[in-house]
Amino acid sequence: MSGLDVRPERARAELATLVDAADDDDLVIAYARAAWSAIVEPGDRVAGAIVEAFGPVRALEIALSGDGHSGEESVAGLAPGELAKGCARWRPRRGDIDEALARGRRAGARLVTPEDADWPAPLDDLGPFAPLCLWVRGDPRRLAGAPALSIVGARASTAYGESIAADLGAECAVAGITVVSGAAYGIDGAAHRAALSADGATVAIMAGGIDRAYPVGHIELLEDIAATGAIISEMPCGAAPTKHRFLSRNRVIAALGDATVVVEAGWRSGSQNTAHHAQAIGRPVGVVPGPVTSAASMGCHRLLQEGDAICITGIADVRDYLGVGGAGGVDSVGGVGGAASERTDDRTRVLDALSTRSARVVDDIARRAGLAVDEAAAILGLLALEGNAQRRPTGWVQAKPGAATLW
Amino acid sequence: MSGLDVRPERARAELATLVDAADDDDLVIAYARAAWSAIVEPGDRVAGAIVEAFGPVRALEIALSGDGHSGEESVAGLAPGELAKGCARWRPRRGDIDEALARGRRAGARLVTPEDADWPAPLDDLGPFAPLCLWVRGDPRRLAGAPALSIVGARASTAYGESIAADLGAECAVAGITVVSGAAYGIDGAAHRAALSADGATVAIMAGGIDRAYPVGHIELLEDIAATGAIISEMPCGAAPTKHRFLSRNRVIAALGDATVVVEAGWRSGSQNTAHHAQAIGRPVGVVPGPVTSAASMGCHRLLQEGDAICITGIADVRDYLGVGGAGGVDSVGGVGGAASERTDDRTRVLDALSTRSARVVDDIARRAGLAVDEAAAILGLLALEGNAQRRPTGWVQAKPGAATLW
Repeated sequence: MSGLDVRPERARAELATLVDAADDDDLVIAYARAAWSAIVEPGDRVAGAIVEAFGPVRALEIALSGDGHSGEESVAGLAPGELAKGCARWRPRRGDIDEALARGRRAGARLVTPEDADWPAPLDDLGPFAPLCLWVRGDPRRLAGAPALSIVGARASTAYGESIAADLGAECAVAGITVVSGAAYGIDGAAHRAALSADGATVAIMAGGIDRAYPVGHIELLEDIAATGAIISEMPCGAAPTKHRFLSRNRVIAALGDATVVVEAGWRSGSQNTAHHAQAIGRPVGVVPGPVTSAASMGCHRLLQEGDAICITGIADVRDYLGVGGAGGVDSVGGVGGAASERTDDRTRVLDALSTRSARVVDDIARRAGLAVDEAAAILGLLALEGNAQRRPTGWVQAKPGAATLW
Repeated sequence: MSGLDVRPERARAELATLVDAADDDDLVIAYARAAWSAIVEPGDRVAGAIVEAFGPVRALEIALSGDGHSGEESVAGLAPGELAKGCARWRPRRGDIDEALARGRRAGARLVTPEDADWPAPLDDLGPFAPLCLWVRGDPRRLAGAPALSIVGARASTAYGESIAADLGAECAVAGITVVSGAAYGIDGAAHRAALSADGATVAIMAGGIDRAYPVGHIELLEDIAATGAIISEMPCGAAPTKHRFLSRNRVIAALGDATVVVEAGWRSGSQNTAHHAQAIGRPVGVVPGPVTSAASMGCHRLLQEGDAICITGIADVRDYLGVGGAGGVDSVGGVGGAASERTDDRTRVLDALSTRSARVVDDIARRAGLAVDEAAAILGLLALEGNAQRRPTGWVQAKPGAATLW
């Protein structure tokens, strides 16, 4: 056949250091998925659909040997001709497969596939847009199990945003929440660093290959993340971080977090793209507000205004409003102006009618409060019990001055 | 009868300077309403209900002469005994009526009643909690007609909040929107002042009588407001600004604005009370977000989180999201990640695949972009038309370097 040779012996040789011991079938599948990652751009819906329909091995044979008109192109979710177009764009990259595997071995990468126990199930929420496999530096188990919060934001961040991202990152670490981000300058970096400083787990999702430090100024940060957490890409080693891959990468960040928080974002920003990806797969989205005079908060306020996000002011809100790392659900807060404040309304009037200096008789207090005398007398009794009013021989005085600051 | 003597000759004498020329019936009604304002606390639902049921004159006779058991106590919305309780709390204040009228004359006040053309109809949305009349210094016509925005916030404001309040106040003035607020220190004062500076209309709603400058440090500001706008209270002249009256006053601020914006507010604050009053009568509520590290913005963020307010960043949002002073409705904004970005997806890939320096052939570009050769060629043609790609003898280059900043 003109497809790729994916017999077990070849898969075993190529994947020796990339995957844990697996049976021959698993090895062949893993090899095919690694090959797929080298021939498609991220989020290729047609690739996702035929891999889903035929499995990665048969799908790869079709992709590389067929012309999409073999009679197998009738795949759920694909329009006529889509498979042929897919083959036309995948085949030119066939030669990149061997290099991707070789680079992966040199980089000490691990390959994680949907067939692995370590595969993060939340990625499946992306449907046909899910990554076909993940290339990982560090501990692949960081991807599964623990609650995770994606913290993203502007590269052009302010000191305010960075300190908020650092607070959130550190508080996540303390709460046992994995911090997922994109390793960019600014907000991403602050969140990763704070999680590391607090001995927490953190995972960086890369747009290019995990062997390419991007941005280059974060070489050391990326090494630190790989040492205790994980650096992940759906692109094979050596892949350049292109604009398209950055935007596609954002869906992986959105899917890996139980929720996404945007700390700062410009009016048009990648963080909004991440937020919309999260929203599209039903993940809660929070934004941290900031001064309306700050361009770095415009995107956050825009997400709030368009109803795409919830306002988040700290880790407690992440638990209460986003349901990450806690029981979830919104705490019941006693509202101002509700039933409780109506009940205290007459009480407030009587307190208002009392002086802290001159004693007043009940008739006078009732008149001042606009209450009937018996009502005023009853409330004065309550206030006396509370210690807020005091009866003197000549009348009543207020016992605790200066407590009224609500207006 | 043991009720008040409200014959026309007396009403004419008492009200000579307080109301414009009116017929005898109107004079008697205005006099009764003025008397009502002296015997009830603001927002007395029982008073509102019997004035609605019997008219202010007959209601006043019942209030001051009857015991609520005269057979007329069957009023819609009142439970058995409520009217009798009302009479018991109103009668002790009967002696305050004459003093209130005399003080009103001395203060140069105007009395505005629901029977007047200048009565602000929006107050009727408060139902039985509506003021029974308004005492006004300045121009009563400031109350009706023009679009109005209530701008409220913390007394303990920050420089940030004050500058935002000032911007909003001035922008309202320029847009012909009346600024309604409470004349307090902090946000209220900044909003009033800015409206005055920009020659706009502004109205201050007082908790006590309009002849009592409160806070005392705002004496000059209040004079300035009265000179071109209006100072308003439902309490008669001489009334003290008690805590209960401050909280009740907030419902008038909420009702007089077409919307309410909270600029800064602490966790528990009167501004939240105003916001909830506005919400209760269906007025849109906006809040200006701020740094989450600022205690003065906690109440604003809380209103956002509890779904009680919309995020407002400037006057354009007041028009677009609150519908004040403009066509209303939310502008359609091209979202990131929507259909438009999907359409440009392949275009982005091809741009990514181009170099600004070395020319690349179409096959190479297609492979790099992960597209079929014919697809890549078609997109290159479009990019060339746009001026973003350039064909050279040896292949294609990107024509506009450095434009890609979206990640």
